[in-house]
Amino acid sequence: MEGVDHLAFERKKAQFDVNDMKIVWAGSRQEFELSDRISRLVASDPVFQKDNRTALDRKELFKNTLRKAAHAWKRIIELRLNEQEASKLRSFVDQPGFTDLHWGMFVPAIKGQGTDEQQEKWLPLANNMQIIGCYAQTELGHGSNVQGLETTATFDPKTDEFIIHSPTLTSSKWWPGGLGKISTHAIVYARLITDGQDHGVHGFIVQLRSLDDHLPLPGITVGDIGMKFGNAAYNSMDNGVLRFDHVRIPRNQMLMRVSQVTREGKFVHSGVPRQLIYGTMVYVRQAIVADASIALSRAVCIATRYSAVRRQFGSQKGGPETQVIDYKTQQARLFPLLASAYAFRFVSEWLKWLYTDVTQKLQANDFSTLPEAHACTAGLKSLTTSATADGIEECRKLCGGHGYLCSSGLPELFAVYVPACTYEGDNTVLLLQVARYLIKTITQLGSGNKPVGTTAYFARVEQLMQYQSDVKRAEDWLKPNVVIEAFEARAARMSAAVAQNLSKFTDPEEGFQELSADLVEAAAAHCQLIVVSKFIEKLQQDIPGNGVKQQLEVLCSVYALFLLHNHLGDFLSTGCITQKQGSLANEQLRSLYSQVRPNAIALVDAFNYTDHLLGSVLGRYDGNVYPKLYEEAWKDPLNDSVVPDGFKDHVQPILRQQIRNARL
Amino acid sequence: MEGVDHLAFERKKAQFDVNDMKIVWAGSRQEFELSDRISRLVASDPVFQKDNRTALDRKELFKNTLRKAAHAWKRIIELRLNEQEASKLRSFVDQPGFTDLHWGMFVPAIKGQGTDEQQEKWLPLANNMQIIGCYAQTELGHGSNVQGLETTATFDPKTDEFIIHSPTLTSSKWWPGGLGKISTHAIVYARLITDGQDHGVHGFIVQLRSLDDHLPLPGITVGDIGMKFGNAAYNSMDNGVLRFDHVRIPRNQMLMRVSQVTREGKFVHSGVPRQLIYGTMVYVRQAIVADASIALSRAVCIATRYSAVRRQFGSQKGGPETQVIDYKTQQARLFPLLASAYAFRFVSEWLKWLYTDVTQKLQANDFSTLPEAHACTAGLKSLTTSATADGIEECRKLCGGHGYLCSSGLPELFAVYVPACTYEGDNTVLLLQVARYLIKTITQLGSGNKPVGTTAYFARVEQLMQYQSDVKRAEDWLKPNVVIEAFEARAARMSAAVAQNLSKFTDPEEGFQELSADLVEAAAAHCQLIVVSKFIEKLQQDIPGNGVKQQLEVLCSVYALFLLHNHLGDFLSTGCITQKQGSLANEQLRSLYSQVRPNAIALVDAFNYTDHLLGSVLGRYDGNVYPKLYEEAWKDPLNDSVVPDGFKDHVQPILRQQIRNARL
Repeated sequence: MEGVDHLAFERKKAQFDVNDMKIVWAGSRQEFELSDRISRLVASDPVFQKDNRTALDRKELFKNTLRKAAHAWKRIIELRLNEQEASKLRSFVDQPGFTDLHWGMFVPAIKGQGTDEQQEKWLPLANNMQIIGCYAQTELGHGSNVQGLETTATFDPKTDEFIIHSPTLTSSKWWPGGLGKISTHAIVYARLITDGQDHGVHGFIVQLRSLDDHLPLPGITVGDIGMKFGNAAYNSMDNGVLRFDHVRIPRNQMLMRVSQVTREGKFVHSGVPRQLIYGTMVYVRQAIVADASIALSRAVCIATRYSAVRRQFGSQKGGPETQVIDYKTQQARLFPLLASAYAFRFVSEWLKWLYTDVTQKLQANDFSTLPEAHACTAGLKSLTTSATADGIEECRKLCGGHGYLCSSGLPELFAVYVPACTYEGDNTVLLLQVARYLIKTITQLGSGNKPVGTTAYFARVEQLMQYQSDVKRAEDWLKPNVVIEAFEARAARMSAAVAQNLSKFTDPEEGFQELSADLVEAAAAHCQLIVVSKFIEKLQQDIPGNGVKQQLEVLCSVYALFLLHNHLGDFLSTGCITQKQGSLANEQLRSLYSQVRPNAIALVDAFNYTDHLLGSVLGRYDGNVYPKLYEEAWKDPLNDSVVPDGFKDHVQPILRQQIRNARL
Repeated sequence: MEGVDHLAFERKKAQFDVNDMKIVWAGSRQEFELSDRISRLVASDPVFQKDNRTALDRKELFKNTLRKAAHAWKRIIELRLNEQEASKLRSFVDQPGFTDLHWGMFVPAIKGQGTDEQQEKWLPLANNMQIIGCYAQTELGHGSNVQGLETTATFDPKTDEFIIHSPTLTSSKWWPGGLGKISTHAIVYARLITDGQDHGVHGFIVQLRSLDDHLPLPGITVGDIGMKFGNAAYNSMDNGVLRFDHVRIPRNQMLMRVSQVTREGKFVHSGVPRQLIYGTMVYVRQAIVADASIALSRAVCIATRYSAVRRQFGSQKGGPETQVIDYKTQQARLFPLLASAYAFRFVSEWLKWLYTDVTQKLQANDFSTLPEAHACTAGLKSLTTSATADGIEECRKLCGGHGYLCSSGLPELFAVYVPACTYEGDNTVLLLQVARYLIKTITQLGSGNKPVGTTAYFARVEQLMQYQSDVKRAEDWLKPNVVIEAFEARAARMSAAVAQNLSKFTDPEEGFQELSADLVEAAAAHCQLIVVSKFIEKLQQDIPGNGVKQQLEVLCSVYALFLLHNHLGDFLSTGCITQKQGSLANEQLRSLYSQVRPNAIALVDAFNYTDHLLGSVLGRYDGNVYPKLYEEAWKDPLNDSVVPDGFKDHVQPILRQQIRNARL
């Protein structure tokens, strides 16, 4: 029944107009229209087809990625797409590749860390893709600890050059995307050494391969680091290994916006403040939070639609079985993830604003809000990526056995997503940074330093230490201020408790190390408060459309009360709420699920994802799951022949009891 | 430095003899020696090599699996291995394949459900592998709900045959391993219909493929269902799809031990009790729990060794950086998983005993303990497989970025393991079954039904409702009875609370559905209590070796207090412990990590896994990680050529600004 919408009966249940929700999700009508147009353009182009990629071997997959990258570039030129449109197009192609690093890391690094002169020279080359660049920071033995990198860049005043060198095996550059087989250039991070003195890690533009024949230049060893997690997923990317044997580059290829080496080999700081680097980190991490909301919403969209299609048990006298989405256990696992997708979307919107705000202040030489903005984005990166990785896998499980098939789209989505928990700051390391900032904020309270931004509530810490929730009925938990106060009190008390325990140590660093597990929990509590607050703030804005705001209020409460339920130990042990209030919250949560249920399909339709992007038979818009699953199966290479390769050599001798004589 | 043990300095720290612990882990010296011998035999055989399999495409991988299966069978015959040894050998080959289902499901189904006559006919054929069988139960539209299967087996009295038929698309058999390309026969589950009457689901032996040319027999459509999650992993298995178009089989191919169809088409029950089926489920699930302890311990072994090798931050004046395993955040995530691996091992040992006990009672027509044993294994299957799946992924994250490489072994281990959460009972569905049993136990307390086995503590429910932990100092939490009582009180109160809420519903089924999320939590609390209890009981047995028992006591406390910390909300909201006692438990947990630390490497060495089985560069016994990672990278197919396939067609035109004219 091609063309029939098997989920039409579900779509009719919605208590709001899905078109209104689409605009809320996109952020604006303009954003919606842009995404809608570009995603359809990609979906309708046969070159961008991706339904068979999980069965390709590494070489075929990689070749396919190069083809898509070239085609994307061709379309961008032909359609004269602007930067924003081009970037959307690449993201809807949805296949990691070297251009991600070229546009996402190489070009921004030159813009951010290059002098005007350097930008004039390199940006036109990069913008036209006459050179292709990557970002070579991490090493085989050095990930999180950038200051521990071993690659050296030694200035040779005789020739006015830097000698880039890999002194040990562990100093091999390892992981950079696009490096393995494609990049012609790299931003290489190395310890700057002038006159025997180590000035720490700086960035250098290094050409890796000949622009004529693409062979590595003398002194350079470069290759791919091998297979990564999952089918297709990140295996379309040539993450690479790179070693230098005394490779010389001109002095003017050190990125010199912040620090410089003069012709005489003197190391000098320019007037440009180092804090600019933190501004870049705020930018990169806010983008990661936005990506989290997209990845989680894709998984939730698939699981929600399939939960409405799938039926198990509960058949009454030969009638159809119950839709899985009607089971409370399914709702209790799925709907909080649906709410999380919206929560992460809204907090990422706010982070985008925060980045703009910080940038404006930086340009006016105002660094006052930078540390708080930095801590806050670090924490939200950690919270949202961890929750998204776990959430995708939970959605896979919510699809039962069929979620294990690549044709469900979920295995690949998980495998391609999980590195987000590690890259751009390991999630645990980031929470420790947040904790460090929180502890500093608390200990400085006495000295009149007023906490700013998301830590402003610490100014009321004494009041929060006295706080006792006044919830009496389950519905009280629907009031935004009741929720916020409970989350504030819990976060403040957890931070205060660790701060107090820390003060018992004579060596603060020893205390910090000893109590790090508690510090991580306090930081997580703070970050959860931020997400809840920003969701509530969003609802206080003008939200158009009938019933849209009401439904978002439900989701906001689901998100907050789900967190409360999952971290009930925190709320009870800090004495913010009573046992009774905790069970009222759970009661309220349960009844909210019934309000989500009729709207569930419309809430995931609002993401406006094409079937091409979802790449999931289970998550098809039309719900026509089983015939398509059946169809997909036959496409597997194993079905090319009725009797499989190897049967005659290896199985027939067993069946014929000739195994002793078999050549294996 | 080939041959050097880079972890020797860690091994020296252990406070017990690793050889003693190896025997405790294995269960007995005999078990240890068997596993040791067979695992070395497999590891040293080049045919069983597996280090390159994640880069193979589907067809190559499958052919390689057939080759290994044939070689394993050859070795089993040549070495005259007995059943136990043969099964060990197959498990150490560590590559899912059709023989798993032949030996693990097909043969046991005939043994368990076939009449003596049927066993005499079919078992010799199966035992010699003159036929290869699989187990065709689940359908495209029917997983958990076996009673909802649609395939029909209609008796035709004229020919004395059953007509096996797939009436709908959703009735297609879907998932059975070994079915797709290899099995010659299957146990097919279908609705038995005689004289127009539906007698529910029964098993039938059906030949699928010709023993001459391996082509499907008339009326049979069969194939592979396509790619599944992960690199290699379960893609070595031909999970299949199967449709019947009125396929006729002789009447004597219905498995007739429990129910029979006579020549006249009469449906009759034999005297054999149906409960036997539950006995089989107990068997299968106890095996799954044992597998969980193996899978988790493999992941923990890799993560622990690499955490000792890897160093990040904390370098003091050019000295080496800190070993990652020394960070408290790492310990707080890793050591509870190490403790869990031991906990699951011991509970699986006990389940093995339970199965023997139940079997003996069944043979004596005593069914009294069966429901409790069934609930208990269902719950432990759910608990251990969920914790193991999550634990493997956590171990992967604990290895930082390098855990994402296939050469770490962890991606494949995760992908191959996760189906355990779904097969043989979806984990949520199983917990609901446990909850149903608990509620029944509670509601029958008044009527004098004495709770048995793992639910015996319900007999003291009134006392447990009054319970209040008397912990005063952190060390009090090391006392087994203190821990057990707290876990008993929490589990009993959670069950009692849901039972009370359930009693408010006039329709009990409606209440059960409405409160299912709470029921799942109560069941989980009960299952956790079982694991903790069995760990403690194990410690009360005679454990030989210096320091072995002490170290296991530490692990037992880590496991229990980690659970307590993670579910603090339960313990506090049920009023079993106070806030203060909760924080003392956390304090004690923290200090236990320091006692695990020096023994960590020896505790994972005790699993006695070969490097072949681990298949992980990060988890190598000798800790020689970085040179081997570097070496592995170059083996990737992408490194076969310096300039990759597709570069000339797709990238060079970009670099040369000829993209407009490029043919893509």
